[in-house]
Amino acid sequence: MASAVETAQGTAKVWIGGAWQESDAEGVFEPENPATGEGLGRTFPVSRWSDCDRALTAAVEAAHVLERTAPEAIAGFLEGYARELEANAEAIVQAAHEETALAAAPRLKDVELPRTTDQLRQAAAAARAGTWRRVTVDRARKIVSGYAPVGPVVVFGPNNFPFAFNGVSGGDFAAAIAAGNPVIAKAHPLHAYTSQLMAEAAARALAGSGLPAATVQMIYKVSHENGERLVSDARIGAVGFTGSKGAGLKLKHAADGAGKPIYLEMSSLNPVVFLPEGLKENAAAWARELADSCTLGSGQFCTRPNLALVAAGGATETFLQELAAAFRSKEPHALLSSSTREQLHASIGALERAGATLVTGGQPVPGSGYRYASTLLQVSGKGFLAQPEELQREAFGNEVMVVVAADAAELVRVLDRLEGNLTGSVYSAASGADDALYGRLEPVLRRRVGRLLNDRMPTGVAVSPAMNHGGPYPATGHPGFTAVGLPASIARFTALQCYDNVREERLPGYLRAQSTERRSQE
Amino acid sequence: MASAVETAQGTAKVWIGGAWQESDAEGVFEPENPATGEGLGRTFPVSRWSDCDRALTAAVEAAHVLERTAPEAIAGFLEGYARELEANAEAIVQAAHEETALAAAPRLKDVELPRTTDQLRQAAAAARAGTWRRVTVDRARKIVSGYAPVGPVVVFGPNNFPFAFNGVSGGDFAAAIAAGNPVIAKAHPLHAYTSQLMAEAAARALAGSGLPAATVQMIYKVSHENGERLVSDARIGAVGFTGSKGAGLKLKHAADGAGKPIYLEMSSLNPVVFLPEGLKENAAAWARELADSCTLGSGQFCTRPNLALVAAGGATETFLQELAAAFRSKEPHALLSSSTREQLHASIGALERAGATLVTGGQPVPGSGYRYASTLLQVSGKGFLAQPEELQREAFGNEVMVVVAADAAELVRVLDRLEGNLTGSVYSAASGADDALYGRLEPVLRRRVGRLLNDRMPTGVAVSPAMNHGGPYPATGHPGFTAVGLPASIARFTALQCYDNVREERLPGYLRAQSTERRSQE
Repeated sequence: MASAVETAQGTAKVWIGGAWQESDAEGVFEPENPATGEGLGRTFPVSRWSDCDRALTAAVEAAHVLERTAPEAIAGFLEGYARELEANAEAIVQAAHEETALAAAPRLKDVELPRTTDQLRQAAAAARAGTWRRVTVDRARKIVSGYAPVGPVVVFGPNNFPFAFNGVSGGDFAAAIAAGNPVIAKAHPLHAYTSQLMAEAAARALAGSGLPAATVQMIYKVSHENGERLVSDARIGAVGFTGSKGAGLKLKHAADGAGKPIYLEMSSLNPVVFLPEGLKENAAAWARELADSCTLGSGQFCTRPNLALVAAGGATETFLQELAAAFRSKEPHALLSSSTREQLHASIGALERAGATLVTGGQPVPGSGYRYASTLLQVSGKGFLAQPEELQREAFGNEVMVVVAADAAELVRVLDRLEGNLTGSVYSAASGADDALYGRLEPVLRRRVGRLLNDRMPTGVAVSPAMNHGGPYPATGHPGFTAVGLPASIARFTALQCYDNVREERLPGYLRAQSTERRSQE
Repeated sequence: MASAVETAQGTAKVWIGGAWQESDAEGVFEPENPATGEGLGRTFPVSRWSDCDRALTAAVEAAHVLERTAPEAIAGFLEGYARELEANAEAIVQAAHEETALAAAPRLKDVELPRTTDQLRQAAAAARAGTWRRVTVDRARKIVSGYAPVGPVVVFGPNNFPFAFNGVSGGDFAAAIAAGNPVIAKAHPLHAYTSQLMAEAAARALAGSGLPAATVQMIYKVSHENGERLVSDARIGAVGFTGSKGAGLKLKHAADGAGKPIYLEMSSLNPVVFLPEGLKENAAAWARELADSCTLGSGQFCTRPNLALVAAGGATETFLQELAAAFRSKEPHALLSSSTREQLHASIGALERAGATLVTGGQPVPGSGYRYASTLLQVSGKGFLAQPEELQREAFGNEVMVVVAADAAELVRVLDRLEGNLTGSVYSAASGADDALYGRLEPVLRRRVGRLLNDRMPTGVAVSPAMNHGGPYPATGHPGFTAVGLPASIARFTALQCYDNVREERLPGYLRAQSTERRSQE
């Protein structure tokens, strides 16, 4: 007999309209354990359009109910979901460990899962507080306005965070739900079973919440064509996407053409600049810090440094030697998948063809699991400036390329050719001896990054109200929004609604209740 | 000898890099007086790409200076500009009257120009107050963030507001400047001389302001190809556009492809619904109010009603008769141009072919000037539902189409097929006798409009902090932003910038000064 979440043939069901339903599948897939390269024995469906269509119809109905649902009920669901995840942490962590090869502890159990439940609870607090509504009142003219849910949100989660960015549990999910939008989650196929366990936890939390059953829905995989159709469907309100630039730009093109807001977090090199005076004191320590940041989690973070910049002379040679030694000493762990490794290898090859020199690494590691040698590349400033586009190809994984500029002036010219990034970091002398150079390069770097750091690696994105996990294109699709940090991240999933001369008793509750606030004084 | 703003041949110069320069023109054009159809004897250049290129380079330099300029200097410029416009009001109003056929008074002199200077002064106040920065501080983690200028902004002004939405003086201009962005204005060719006079006023205000000379630049006309190249150039930060859907969507496609934020205000039918119980008391008065709103300024407002909706029975027949009488009594004024009249006629023809019946009008008015008979069309709810897309074609000018639904249920079905609009209005009985029906249709209409009105025509957009002059696609390109209302309209021209562990003395002034504010408590 079929289980609640599986068909009689053992294929997972999709979660549509509040029920686990057999998918109208055009195929199935089986996730692997990337630490062994072996299949995990579970099959999941590739949905045809009809699955998407049913989910969209159910989401529209849910949206109508949710926009009239009390924030307390939404907050209650988010908190209940956090508790369900905690209660089932062991099974969820084990599934994610098997599907991603990320360490069960501390990474999955002690870092990512607590971060995920914290995000859900912060989203609950934001839903209750309601500041995301940004109410503005003009009493004299009888005009009031505020932000409202935008409508059903489709969330595409990435491969590298099975919990914290998962379409059915992560930051985009939490922000969309907090504003009262239903979510259609597209799970990442690499951690399909993890996503299923999380969706089951969400379903239990939903059951007692008073929210519509289709507040959360999930499918596992669709063709590119159906993905593009999904993000441009008239029934959706907006899209959240975290993933590769290639996939992101295709979805952006489709959503843009239909006038649908799409928020993308795509590639980023996260440049780190080491200034000469500081290097004299810290060459070895900074080299180790960089190597650690590049190889933590096999470098599979959106914000791991993929590019480092120094000027020749002084202690730079020492720094480069220490960095090479640190990279050689790193024992690589398995990457997320076979294709992650193939793409990393292809990117490193492309960087070499564009003029970068291989210092260490550059090869898959033999044996079980999809491992790759931690890789250090180097290129001169002149070499970089000759092919700046090709040399800004992201190499997703445990790799960094160091640009060695001839002097400070060339360093600034290199920075002036960088594309948009999520982050940019500058390490400099504590004494202030680098401050003149900092003053020259800061404006150039600042306008190219969403988050500017001093003396700190970009890896790790605090869930802080002041965080910006965003940045100029092509790091994201819009420089005015952040994917992390509540309540700010909610703004992506809202629409501005104005009421002009509308009778008081006809206003929505949040405008009647908060009618003394003014956006002009925010 | 050539004047400051004209070449020896008498062709206007373009304003680039702080100087009136001879355009690298690929042609010239001569604005007409639409009240007479006669040329006004002034020629203006169609710029080749090199004009755009020079303006872009100058704008980038200006942006670097402006982002470090004190808000007081920006505010001072905006206020100085407002004073210059007032000091030269007579000449500017006369020029606009000749180029647009809009009434010199009250429209241009007493309404639109004061509104424009008020916008500039409100933008100055917003620049000083700095609330648009939305500073957020996380002391524990040493993370601070706020919004910063996005970079050079290209503003395309529309044909229908020579002052208040002009690229060189209007709402987008004021909002972009307030945040510290230079503006490249693309004047509307129909009121090129008006734009030139305003730009001269801006130049005088700039001279003593301490702002960079290229803070404001202006060209008159470019090919479609160069317009698309301009909005997708790597040097710009964002685009503001007000105009037709056809032109807007082409620019959107180009900007989207380059990852450039573009804020569009395009077409809108601004539906007005009259509910049956209220009609019983007010049929004649509401008919006159609608006719006045549809024909004011020859219906050439973004927010004039192009669509009215009623249910058959009751007083509806009386309403329709009164409306027809009111339309027949309206003496039409000249439209903005020959092509405005051609497009209006073409749209009315298309609506008739799609099933609408002509009640009155439908023909150009003979004699001097580009006049068109005020036009009333009618269609049944069934007819509308048979061809909802074709029957939502905008007819820009003094025209309205009334949908007569068979009953209340069909009325709601018609509303459920509407595309995104800037506004939607509902007139209903003061007694509350229509409230049950209001409750049924409000959610359907609400999610399709940016501004919902009761018992008030949408024409006229107050410059209020609570205003939303925006709405769902295709009325605009993004449902989260407004083009009118300060400081909210500034958000379009900003980028979120985060500082993570950055040394206090290296933070920009606005973050050091306001470090006690918190976005989480806004």
